[in-house]
Amino acid sequence: MFKNLEKAPAGHHEPLADVLDRVRFNADGLVPAIAQQGDSGEVLMMAWMNREALEETLRTGRVCYWSRSRGALWRKGESSGQVQQLRSLHLDCDGDTVLAKVDQTGPACHTGRRSCFYLQVDGDQVAVTSDPQIDPETLYGAS
Amino acid sequence: MFKNLEKAPAGHHEPLADVLDRVRFNADGLVPAIAQQGDSGEVLMMAWMNREALEETLRTGRVCYWSRSRGALWRKGESSGQVQQLRSLHLDCDGDTVLAKVDQTGPACHTGRRSCFYLQVDGDQVAVTSDPQIDPETLYGAS
Repeated sequence: MFKNLEKAPAGHHEPLADVLDRVRFNADGLVPAIAQQGDSGEVLMMAWMNREALEETLRTGRVCYWSRSRGALWRKGESSGQVQQLRSLHLDCDGDTVLAKVDQTGPACHTGRRSCFYLQVDGDQVAVTSDPQIDPETLYGAS
Repeated sequence: MFKNLEKAPAGHHEPLADVLDRVRFNADGLVPAIAQQGDSGEVLMMAWMNREALEETLRTGRVCYWSRSRGALWRKGESSGQVQQLRSLHLDCDGDTVLAKVDQTGPACHTGRRSCFYLQVDGDQVAVTSDPQIDPETLYGAS
């Protein structure tokens, strides 16, 4: 299907159900999912979705991932309150990566930083580029 | 190391060589690498880097991936001429994903489209959202 869509003009449509059947999940049943803040374009994080997470995200409009460490659906913000409201969901040319444009409430990163990508190569050093917006103990509860 | 960096303030530095030793490549020796156009913020593509590709990217300032299908380094643009000049390179909080901010010459996608993410969910349909800028036969040569 994705091969056929390569030559399709802008505006061409396919039924979502057919496309979901062809998404190229990896051997673990997962695809990488990039979350991008819709207005600023900032890349916030990269996580993984299985088919169930992808379908829940589309159904509810709130982004849901698959937590590989917990082996469970991960409704972003369910512990921290820092939810991702879905603006639009995109697939790439070979149907094996998701791009979710979102409205992120507060920090996306478990460290309390807005984006997870706060480490930047600077010559022969790597620099921390941002501070937490919120103490992670406030987000996840130390008490 | 990445756990320790979570609490480091903005401006904190670590030697690049030490960080590269700790990047969390997967069982295949790869990390996902997101390419984002530096000025517009458009997410162009997602591909994979092994350590050699990551080091070459940093050394040359031209983005290099690992082609899983060809099992070889993939110097983006080596066939098509559509190179990615590196603006900055970022790692995420747990050191298992790369974000490369780039200047993309022409289309990033092998279909001739600017971005690989040209499929968008629209209700119960998936729509093609852009047309190729260049015929892929021009990029890769049909003759």
